[in-house]
Amino acid sequence: MTERLYLYDTTLRDGQQTQGVQFSTREKIQIAEALDALGVDHIEGGWPGANPTDSEFFETRPETRATLTAFGMTKRAGRSAENDEVLAAVLNAGTPSVCIVGKTHDFHVTTALGITLDENLVNIRDSIAHIVAQGREALFDAEHFFDGWKANPDYALEAIRAAHEAGARWIVLCDTNGGSMPEEIAHITRAVIAAGISGDHLGIHCHDDTGQAVAGSLAAVEAGARQIQGTLNGLGERCGNANLTTLIPTLLLKEPYASKLETGVSFDALKGLRRASRLLDDILNRVPSKQAPYVGASAFAHKAGLHASAIAKDPSTYEHVDPAVVGNSRIVPMSNQAGQSNLRERLMRAGIEVEKGDPALARILDRIKEQESRGYSYDTAQASFELLALDELGRLPDFFEVKRYRVTVERRRNKRGKMVSLSEAVVVVKIGGEKVLSVSESAGPDGSDRGPVNALSRALGKDLGPYQSIIDDVHLVDFKVRITDGGTDAVTRVIIDSEDGQGNRWSTVGVSANIVDASFDALVESIRWKLVRDGAEPVARV
Amino acid sequence: MTERLYLYDTTLRDGQQTQGVQFSTREKIQIAEALDALGVDHIEGGWPGANPTDSEFFETRPETRATLTAFGMTKRAGRSAENDEVLAAVLNAGTPSVCIVGKTHDFHVTTALGITLDENLVNIRDSIAHIVAQGREALFDAEHFFDGWKANPDYALEAIRAAHEAGARWIVLCDTNGGSMPEEIAHITRAVIAAGISGDHLGIHCHDDTGQAVAGSLAAVEAGARQIQGTLNGLGERCGNANLTTLIPTLLLKEPYASKLETGVSFDALKGLRRASRLLDDILNRVPSKQAPYVGASAFAHKAGLHASAIAKDPSTYEHVDPAVVGNSRIVPMSNQAGQSNLRERLMRAGIEVEKGDPALARILDRIKEQESRGYSYDTAQASFELLALDELGRLPDFFEVKRYRVTVERRRNKRGKMVSLSEAVVVVKIGGEKVLSVSESAGPDGSDRGPVNALSRALGKDLGPYQSIIDDVHLVDFKVRITDGGTDAVTRVIIDSEDGQGNRWSTVGVSANIVDASFDALVESIRWKLVRDGAEPVARV
Repeated sequence: MTERLYLYDTTLRDGQQTQGVQFSTREKIQIAEALDALGVDHIEGGWPGANPTDSEFFETRPETRATLTAFGMTKRAGRSAENDEVLAAVLNAGTPSVCIVGKTHDFHVTTALGITLDENLVNIRDSIAHIVAQGREALFDAEHFFDGWKANPDYALEAIRAAHEAGARWIVLCDTNGGSMPEEIAHITRAVIAAGISGDHLGIHCHDDTGQAVAGSLAAVEAGARQIQGTLNGLGERCGNANLTTLIPTLLLKEPYASKLETGVSFDALKGLRRASRLLDDILNRVPSKQAPYVGASAFAHKAGLHASAIAKDPSTYEHVDPAVVGNSRIVPMSNQAGQSNLRERLMRAGIEVEKGDPALARILDRIKEQESRGYSYDTAQASFELLALDELGRLPDFFEVKRYRVTVERRRNKRGKMVSLSEAVVVVKIGGEKVLSVSESAGPDGSDRGPVNALSRALGKDLGPYQSIIDDVHLVDFKVRITDGGTDAVTRVIIDSEDGQGNRWSTVGVSANIVDASFDALVESIRWKLVRDGAEPVARV
Repeated sequence: MTERLYLYDTTLRDGQQTQGVQFSTREKIQIAEALDALGVDHIEGGWPGANPTDSEFFETRPETRATLTAFGMTKRAGRSAENDEVLAAVLNAGTPSVCIVGKTHDFHVTTALGITLDENLVNIRDSIAHIVAQGREALFDAEHFFDGWKANPDYALEAIRAAHEAGARWIVLCDTNGGSMPEEIAHITRAVIAAGISGDHLGIHCHDDTGQAVAGSLAAVEAGARQIQGTLNGLGERCGNANLTTLIPTLLLKEPYASKLETGVSFDALKGLRRASRLLDDILNRVPSKQAPYVGASAFAHKAGLHASAIAKDPSTYEHVDPAVVGNSRIVPMSNQAGQSNLRERLMRAGIEVEKGDPALARILDRIKEQESRGYSYDTAQASFELLALDELGRLPDFFEVKRYRVTVERRRNKRGKMVSLSEAVVVVKIGGEKVLSVSESAGPDGSDRGPVNALSRALGKDLGPYQSIIDDVHLVDFKVRITDGGTDAVTRVIIDSEDGQGNRWSTVGVSANIVDASFDALVESIRWKLVRDGAEPVARV
């Protein structure tokens, strides 16, 4: 017999309280889709009314299997729940579920809110009752619950009882300041259950201020709580929230959880965990944490010689789970024999067949290593990886040669006295002995200036002679820039995502101290890859 | 009555097994000094004989208060401890303390080593006895102990008993694969103590593969273990080791540890924790983790408006410890979630006094909100934030006006047939009615091309007329690019860090669909801020 454990994601709300994080509405929708595919039960989308993008997100009404939830706070003292416009804005988002935060620590009631303890209880009770009366599912985030319990257990309990009795489906015990030890969390959760609120109405919300948000969440679950609130990649205020990317595989794969509890995440969805984690990093343009449990690039990397040789005999010697179950893969040192078999496998998946023992494999590994030391990264730039391999294998056709390019960006006052920018690029290529010059201005969909990379992309795609029909529908869909290390100097790494008319999408990489140079190289690789993919016939040199 | 808890650092050994980490001897010495200043008890310096820098580090014989420890493994089967040259190399390092790893999981003895269970016991016993006979302190790292216990508790216990009886000062229970839950670790540690090995001879060594290395270490301590092995910043194989940077403040500041246990770390040394953490990041040229517990830049950053206003009343409302005790500080970032009180406090800290209720406060907040919806971010770009506020307050002098600029990037073949890039910028400004034209090529320290932003920065800083002496020593030290959303379109956000001759450092932001435009705006703001800061006298318009 398994019990249901519910997962409540707050990446879009508490996660957005991470320093430097501000999602756009489009990004919120992307993240919500990824969370939904993973199988979380609730998606907290933000605080409607508190900022424009949160309101806009709810207006788009994304369709999710997960219960979309709006966040807000209990009504203020001195007015009714019906007349509190902050609460009204939250309810107006029209979500099936509403989560409101309220005080349970007496010190906060008197210090931060400056109201009486009784007034606070009324605020909690009336707010929850109002949400329930509107036919919504109500959740109560019991702020500072563990600190509150330690200071005044009677009042803390009274506060969550008020929410419970008013009809809250979930009472979420929050370790808001993140300072509680897992053992305390377990102890206090057990005491709450003993006081009469059953575990299947209790959630846990931990922060990572002592590096124990995951352990604290699991401790509450062991004590009987049946909902976990957390975020993808542990995003969140200060040190972040409990990391669902870490918690989910632990709950599905490790005892005592795996055989006792059931979540909405299937083993099939679990295989997409690494991808979901990377999507969020991509959106935030963050370098993914290599050491992240389960999904990090180093999570199954075996550097110690003793480890690597034992892994070759049996991976379970130094791996607590199989990397494939979370969509991750094993990394063993390049020099190791396993490095080559990994490479062959990756090439095979790209449709590039190489014989076992082909000396080109070692050359490809060496060149990747050298390129990576210069700042390149082939983790996501699959198309550039394939071009590199094809080149070493002698299978890359010589489609065209770039002779030179020039790009100019100018800002000046136009005739009407308004400051305007203009970018113009000239690209010169040689195709089978013939020189082709193209010039183009940068222009977005509305004709406005989009900068030098756009101008280069348009010039490059304007006239490629006999190849033109193949690349006509190629367009740049994303552009990522990262300052990184190339040897001893800082260099710029540009990753460009391209798409064609059939919806194929591919990524290429360029590296240089000059951002325009790096971008241009990635653009050229994008075109080359498309020509390879569509089997373009190289024009013979004259 | 407090009990002594010992801290054993393995940053230089297990930490070096992090993917991509290879310390030089000089770096090892620097780290050892920082660890010693912190007050750890043991510093494990490496595996003498296993690689050249490890051997060289021990040859330098750094003077530390902490016990310098050499790492190795038990002797191989089929030879005596005296005749095992791997063990001999470890002992030859001449350290007062030697830690050797050995198998305690039956599966590993037969699968990875391929020897009998009895042979393994002999290897452990003889190796430890040999170390003790040489007058050294001996530690035994019981590899895979928890997995071993779960598979065959009798054998696991027999293995550590062999080490204990042979005279090992510490038996370190290792969760080598990092897959054990804290609760299991506590349970098994208690069982070992019950079987007769007392807690003051037991250490714990955890890995972070389920994000619980800190919690697992604390669970073992609660069960009675009295040594913790870990690393600075959680460096280590795969997901890393238990993070001492997180564990140390928890042990000193939080119950039940603070009043029950004593370590070698003083409260005075604790104030250097953040610095020690940054030193390691500097050596590794890593971007410090903002969300790191206690020491991260965001660990005491309060973004939510409700949090920020409560913090102003009493910091303990949203801080579990005082940031100063670990050498960290509070940050109240500006964002669209913040209120007027938050804003006034931030302005005050920047030396900008504004009366409570000044209508400019609302205007500043509105403008920030509007700018953020266009893609700007003022969380880190403090200088741009100050300029915006000064402008709204009518306190920003009109130093100069940018009339136009033009930048050209060109790649072509030079006379020797080599492809070279060249970037050139022209900037035209008007200072007090006088037009100043400047032109500059891009050039790095070695004269090589660094791209259009570098060229613009050099042209802008070349001749600013009467202000030139103030901006002469300003230089660009960092440049961050992010593609983000500005309204409905993707735009580029550029953050530029500048520095002057006195070591002042400031950040400015620019946003545009054109990356060069965004960069130029951030460069201009950087210059303006420096002029404000140094109290430059604006030139009167003629």
